[in-house]
Amino acid sequence: MSAILAELSKVSGARLVGDPECVINAVNTLDLASTGEITFLSNRHYANRLLKTKASAVILSENDLKNCPTNALVSNAPYLVYAKIANYLYPIKQHHGAINEKAVIGQKCNIDHTSTISANVVIGDNVTINAETYIGPGCVIADNVCIGENTILIANITLCHDVCIGNNVILHPGVVIGADGFGLAQENGEWLKIPQIGSVNLGNNVEVGANSTIDRGAIGNTIISNGVKIDNQVQIGHNAFVGENTAIAGCVALAGSAYIGKRCQIGGASSINGHIEITDDVIITGMSGVANSIKTPGVYSSAIPVTDNKIWKRNIIRFKNLDQIIKKIMFKLE
Amino acid sequence: MSAILAELSKVSGARLVGDPECVINAVNTLDLASTGEITFLSNRHYANRLLKTKASAVILSENDLKNCPTNALVSNAPYLVYAKIANYLYPIKQHHGAINEKAVIGQKCNIDHTSTISANVVIGDNVTINAETYIGPGCVIADNVCIGENTILIANITLCHDVCIGNNVILHPGVVIGADGFGLAQENGEWLKIPQIGSVNLGNNVEVGANSTIDRGAIGNTIISNGVKIDNQVQIGHNAFVGENTAIAGCVALAGSAYIGKRCQIGGASSINGHIEITDDVIITGMSGVANSIKTPGVYSSAIPVTDNKIWKRNIIRFKNLDQIIKKIMFKLE
Amino acid sequence: MSAILAELSKVSGARLVGDPECVINAVNTLDLASTGEITFLSNRHYANRLLKTKASAVILSENDLKNCPTNALVSNAPYLVYAKIANYLYPIKQHHGAINEKAVIGQKCNIDHTSTISANVVIGDNVTINAETYIGPGCVIADNVCIGENTILIANITLCHDVCIGNNVILHPGVVIGADGFGLAQENGEWLKIPQIGSVNLGNNVEVGANSTIDRGAIGNTIISNGVKIDNQVQIGHNAFVGENTAIAGCVALAGSAYIGKRCQIGGASSINGHIEITDDVIITGMSGVANSIKTPGVYSSAIPVTDNKIWKRNIIRFKNLDQIIKKIMFKLE
Repeated sequence: MSAILAELSKVSGARLVGDPECVINAVNTLDLASTGEITFLSNRHYANRLLKTKASAVILSENDLKNCPTNALVSNAPYLVYAKIANYLYPIKQHHGAINEKAVIGQKCNIDHTSTISANVVIGDNVTINAETYIGPGCVIADNVCIGENTILIANITLCHDVCIGNNVILHPGVVIGADGFGLAQENGEWLKIPQIGSVNLGNNVEVGANSTIDRGAIGNTIISNGVKIDNQVQIGHNAFVGENTAIAGCVALAGSAYIGKRCQIGGASSINGHIEITDDVIITGMSGVANSIKTPGVYSSAIPVTDNKIWKRNIIRFKNLDQIIKKIMFKLE
Repeated sequence: MSAILAELSKVSGARLVGDPECVINAVNTLDLASTGEITFLSNRHYANRLLKTKASAVILSENDLKNCPTNALVSNAPYLVYAKIANYLYPIKQHHGAINEKAVIGQKCNIDHTSTISANVVIGDNVTINAETYIGPGCVIADNVCIGENTILIANITLCHDVCIGNNVILHPGVVIGADGFGLAQENGEWLKIPQIGSVNLGNNVEVGANSTIDRGAIGNTIISNGVKIDNQVQIGHNAFVGENTAIAGCVALAGSAYIGKRCQIGGASSINGHIEITDDVIITGMSGVANSIKTPGVYSSAIPVTDNKIWKRNIIRFKNLDQIIKKIMFKLE
Repeated sequence: MSAILAELSKVSGARLVGDPECVINAVNTLDLASTGEITFLSNRHYANRLLKTKASAVILSENDLKNCPTNALVSNAPYLVYAKIANYLYPIKQHHGAINEKAVIGQKCNIDHTSTISANVVIGDNVTINAETYIGPGCVIADNVCIGENTILIANITLCHDVCIGNNVILHPGVVIGADGFGLAQENGEWLKIPQIGSVNLGNNVEVGANSTIDRGAIGNTIISNGVKIDNQVQIGHNAFVGENTAIAGCVALAGSAYIGKRCQIGGASSINGHIEITDDVIITGMSGVANSIKTPGVYSSAIPVTDNKIWKRNIIRFKNLDQIIKKIMFKLE
């Protein structure tokens, strides 16, 4: 949709410097924006692009205002202002509220008439789907699932039995919630499966990326708290707990019974051991491994960045003997 | 279902100390169990919770019996006893044995009348599905697939053509078995696809977690032996071999033509190189990388655990120059 | 299909030494091939198996010809010759060009009459599907998607709205293209979703492995260039760019706005940081982490291979203090 800058200023709380009647139809990058488009400068790395932008308006901070060649929306949080404006200009598509004739619905379901059930959805028995929720094509929703209001399942998602999903949730394609956790007991060298009796409780305002998986609890529930954001291909083990407003980037492996506090940020491709506790406000940078509990907020890392292959080969030989080498050196030094 | 303790003692082989007529309806944790529930103590870490449990019965070892405030089932393998009792109290849901009218079945299929084909399943030609097997909603089963007895495909699973699945198998949602392996030949800087002519042979009593993938062989089959347990988001490359009763935790990458022996345990988020051999009874701890063959049973590791980000930054600079630094030190010491 | 060696020599460009009329029905390994089968020797590691092969013909290099006990196809690129011959003997199955009555098609779609739409496919509005393309069962194709000619979507794939797929593409089951990128802005400790307005542009001759995910751009498109080959469970973040003929092995995580050049090879389970640039002809070996841009072609690595668990425990204690230990040693040495 379109909006004038006065409207966008109001929506975002940013101060308008320029023409309040200027019409904006779209967002774009500093480089590519043209007439009718708004852009933003939040990363100082791109500051030199500001002078040449052909956008009709730029969201920026006070410091950059002097270099702005066009209308400006000024804020000390330009990226947040951008987020608000983009959400305003690109509202989520409304659905019509109907059950497609090609959907298969079980018995004793309670589906609000304002919700949309798409083609080739299969819904089990005793399922509750609340108002304004959208279930996209190919989703499978097993018995006794409960889904809140205004929630979106894009397509090809599987919710296993008894899973509970909150309001304003977005699940992307390929997500699987409530599959059995990896619970096994050993007997004479063979594995005996442990029934996974718990479920998954996924709070409000949660987003889960494509092909991510959240296992049901062994006993008791796996819990994803309100406001948690999960990227693609994340694996969350049984009985894990993820605290409010924690963000988990792509390809993270979170083992069973791990406890993650509030407002944590887990970088992509990191792994978190099971049965450990990470306190609130912890940042784990990408490709890190967390083996033990973290009791102090802060930034933690363990990724090993690449070097030239020949140097790496020599370094890892040293690393394999690191303790012995250091012992030897220490001994000689004494 | 419910059972009395005498029955659970018999089912599990554990010695009953207490009231044989006590009725058990459910399992629960030491902390949360209440009347009518059974719990277990297998991890000494939680021993102090035993005294306060409100469970009607506790599965525990001889050493803990003296502190048990209620009925006890005594065993030197309490977790295994728990597994047996939980399986008894929570039997797998029986299905009705019918082909849903919304399923699409190809030609010349041989589907046992005791098997269940759910809504929106698509089955190709020449498919065999044996007795008591359950195919959940949204599964796609391509031509010439053979599935054994008493096997469960939960939902939204894809079995590619000619794949062979054993008896008593459980496949969780999003599993893909038999996609083409990553076989490419180079020609003038471009890639030419190698047809993947083999298939996948998945044995009896195998479980595969949500969104895991097992590629078909380039020539000959990828083989998953009897009793193998695979967690979520595991990738198994073409022509890999996984030996009997090996367990592979979540997010493991097993490259093509890797050979894993029997009774191995591969920790979560680990990677195994292609064309290597891991002998029987090897344990790889989580987040490890296996580059070369392992010929001796034992425990192997390579994960780097997180440190404070500032310390990490200094350490990795040293690590990048580790060989040179050590050479310099050695030189000075001589 | 079958072919005589004269034909296979012509198809592949390899020089025939032996009987041009010999009939070949199949390919197989050196060990397992028997009469009527062709095999290849491209890895010197297996040279000793040549003498005993029972194949009717072997593809090999000039050096190995003297040891060949049967007909030979001689080339300095035996694996490439194998690829050409296997593609000739195992042509991709032709489909009949029809829309299954169980498919659901939206409005204003333009589906070429030579294309095949399988059962339980759901297609949105304004979708274009060009000639000879195959859409397998369970695929969901959202509004405004465009798919080129001779492209294959095996099964259970999701293409989100406005995604554009080229010619001669193969997408394996569980692939998700065009899900929202992980774009979030912070406000008072909560996350505000950034609309993902861009799309995905996937070129010609691209292959994407099972359960891989390619996110749509935040602004502008995520771009996968012609000839790119992507293995299973790869995650490609929003606005990433992958250059022509680059190959990405399984379980790689490619973060948002990463730029990968042409003809790169990214080893399995590696991770590439966002907002960095990797130049053309870079090889990243498996399990490596790329934190910064790479400006020089070459081979780069950072994987840490496993050692015995007891040695590892001692080494990582040293590693956690590496900088301090080295400082201490240096100080003593001065």
